[in-house]
Amino acid sequence: MNKDNITIVKTTNGKAKPSENALGFGKYFTDHMFVLDYDIDNGWHSPRVVPYEPITLDPAAMVFHYGQTVFEGLKAYYGTNGKTMLFRPEKNVERLNRSCNRLSIPEIDEELFLKGLKTLIAVEKEWIPKEDGTSLYIRPFILPTETNLRVAPANSYKFIIILSPVGAYYAEGIHPVAINVEKEYTRAVLGGTGTAKTAGNYCAGYKAQKKASEQGAAQVLWLDGVEKKYIEEVGSMNIFFKINGEVVTPELNGSILEGITRMSIIELLKKWGIPVTEKKISFEEFVQAYEDGIVEEVFGTGTAAVISPVGEFRFQDKIMIINNRETGELSKKLYDTITGIQTGKMEDELNWTIEV
Amino acid sequence: MNKDNITIVKTTNGKAKPSENALGFGKYFTDHMFVLDYDIDNGWHSPRVVPYEPITLDPAAMVFHYGQTVFEGLKAYYGTNGKTMLFRPEKNVERLNRSCNRLSIPEIDEELFLKGLKTLIAVEKEWIPKEDGTSLYIRPFILPTETNLRVAPANSYKFIIILSPVGAYYAEGIHPVAINVEKEYTRAVLGGTGTAKTAGNYCAGYKAQKKASEQGAAQVLWLDGVEKKYIEEVGSMNIFFKINGEVVTPELNGSILEGITRMSIIELLKKWGIPVTEKKISFEEFVQAYEDGIVEEVFGTGTAAVISPVGEFRFQDKIMIINNRETGELSKKLYDTITGIQTGKMEDELNWTIEV
Repeated sequence: MNKDNITIVKTTNGKAKPSENALGFGKYFTDHMFVLDYDIDNGWHSPRVVPYEPITLDPAAMVFHYGQTVFEGLKAYYGTNGKTMLFRPEKNVERLNRSCNRLSIPEIDEELFLKGLKTLIAVEKEWIPKEDGTSLYIRPFILPTETNLRVAPANSYKFIIILSPVGAYYAEGIHPVAINVEKEYTRAVLGGTGTAKTAGNYCAGYKAQKKASEQGAAQVLWLDGVEKKYIEEVGSMNIFFKINGEVVTPELNGSILEGITRMSIIELLKKWGIPVTEKKISFEEFVQAYEDGIVEEVFGTGTAAVISPVGEFRFQDKIMIINNRETGELSKKLYDTITGIQTGKMEDELNWTIEV
Repeated sequence: MNKDNITIVKTTNGKAKPSENALGFGKYFTDHMFVLDYDIDNGWHSPRVVPYEPITLDPAAMVFHYGQTVFEGLKAYYGTNGKTMLFRPEKNVERLNRSCNRLSIPEIDEELFLKGLKTLIAVEKEWIPKEDGTSLYIRPFILPTETNLRVAPANSYKFIIILSPVGAYYAEGIHPVAINVEKEYTRAVLGGTGTAKTAGNYCAGYKAQKKASEQGAAQVLWLDGVEKKYIEEVGSMNIFFKINGEVVTPELNGSILEGITRMSIIELLKKWGIPVTEKKISFEEFVQAYEDGIVEEVFGTGTAAVISPVGEFRFQDKIMIINNRETGELSKKLYDTITGIQTGKMEDELNWTIEV
């Protein structure tokens, strides 16, 4: 049984590459994918790069019924001098295995995951878009393939990495958005699956997102599921506040996703000597700071947008405008620094990037 | 566009039927399935019975990433005089649409769902097993088929009904099981998806279920996600207590699944003049009643087992034995009555069954 040696089968039928000006997010996919299979007898095996192709499953395959899936999201960048750059991919590998643990999915060998990723990226190098702000989005995911309706962990899985060239998140540059404070629906709760990147966390937010959209907001501010009091996340991003010269972000409490952009921002701020604290932040406490006029900046953080400034919060009939709906100085500096490091335009003093 | 007229394409390659003595649960599937498609322009359309066949999807199909699925579970029974019986299927249809609403999936025409179900059952009539305790399990489910990685409701779906001949839930007759009281993991919380039959609720319980199994228990007792104080469900069943001659069950609170067996038991008990109350039940309150020696019976209820008596609860180092680990008189009477009505052996005074 082949467990380590990655075989490569190239397509004979390459797709035309889409225009770099109209990529959007997650609409186009490259010519190949990386695949690993799991079964009880052999563990994870048969690592291979193969032509991008459909998945064929029995209608009783567990993935259609009980949602035992996990995924990751990261990007490859077209760097200075044509280098292919990855940003802290080992953090995604570690997080995928933490998600696997929560979902009772067998963990993956971290070296094999990274080797598979690098092999796939090397094969698809020409698919990495070059325009400013574009990148090659990487989506590793695991699905249960066993055909059986019993409610229990599957005995067989597939791990797949697919790649999608994506456009700049902000077609017209970084800009602040309106956020709806959500008091009715819950994203996650202590003891649930909130810290895992698993399917059920994402669809659970659709209804609140729709409510936000109908009220003219771009995203939802999620409060904790127990008291509906403490701030947790914004949309599918982590959230930061700059209040009276200090930066605060909700502490990892067992229901918040451990964002890799979040982690990187905390490390950068510490390096810059800007005070940053992870702690419980109640919505009331934020409102008080707002009324005191000491809220300077608010921004979401994640792989897709890197930094997404908040221009206003909407709660019931109240609108709280942040920094005159403009992108704050710190938000801008963080965005420029992280994207600069990701593409090799800025020096990578923290050793975050690797070259493929 | 055909929206109402169900077309039927029969297989030319029927499978051999499995032995009725070793069916198990959800392992074998019949020769045909019912399918409906949805897209934005046409709504739900093209109802059809077709040969049971695999589903082929792009690796970027939303079902693999964001879990926007719902399902149902009900059974067809081989009744007296060879009649084919369904038990309150309209309740499953209504609940599926409530689940759809929570998951931002377009609702299905209830009449078309029922018509599709009956048509499929009629085609597969020979697949309904005849042995005592066996039945044809019916699994309707909806999956998003759109190829796109954006985190938002899909624009295309499939609704599918598959059928699986299943054995008696208790191979050796109804018997009480041990239950582990879970204080760490959470199944669902107010504002979340707990009342919907959606994939993410089920895999979220695997880790606690494994812990229970390792401790020699069959299932998990779920407490509320907010205070970890109130009893919600047992495994993937609703739960009932007979205490001091009265029956109590947790009230529908926004995180408990609205079981159809649960509903039927409440109606039966009322008809029989046995006091039954839906209310918040704290675990502490139950322990007090146990220590007072007034807990008479405890049982889980659901489509698969109908009635699953609890023989003991395990909490930390404590073991609380219920009714001497024997099946209680009421549990037995409810089981016999409901299964009797389902198969036509007992008179259906409440008009619950329909004949196909």
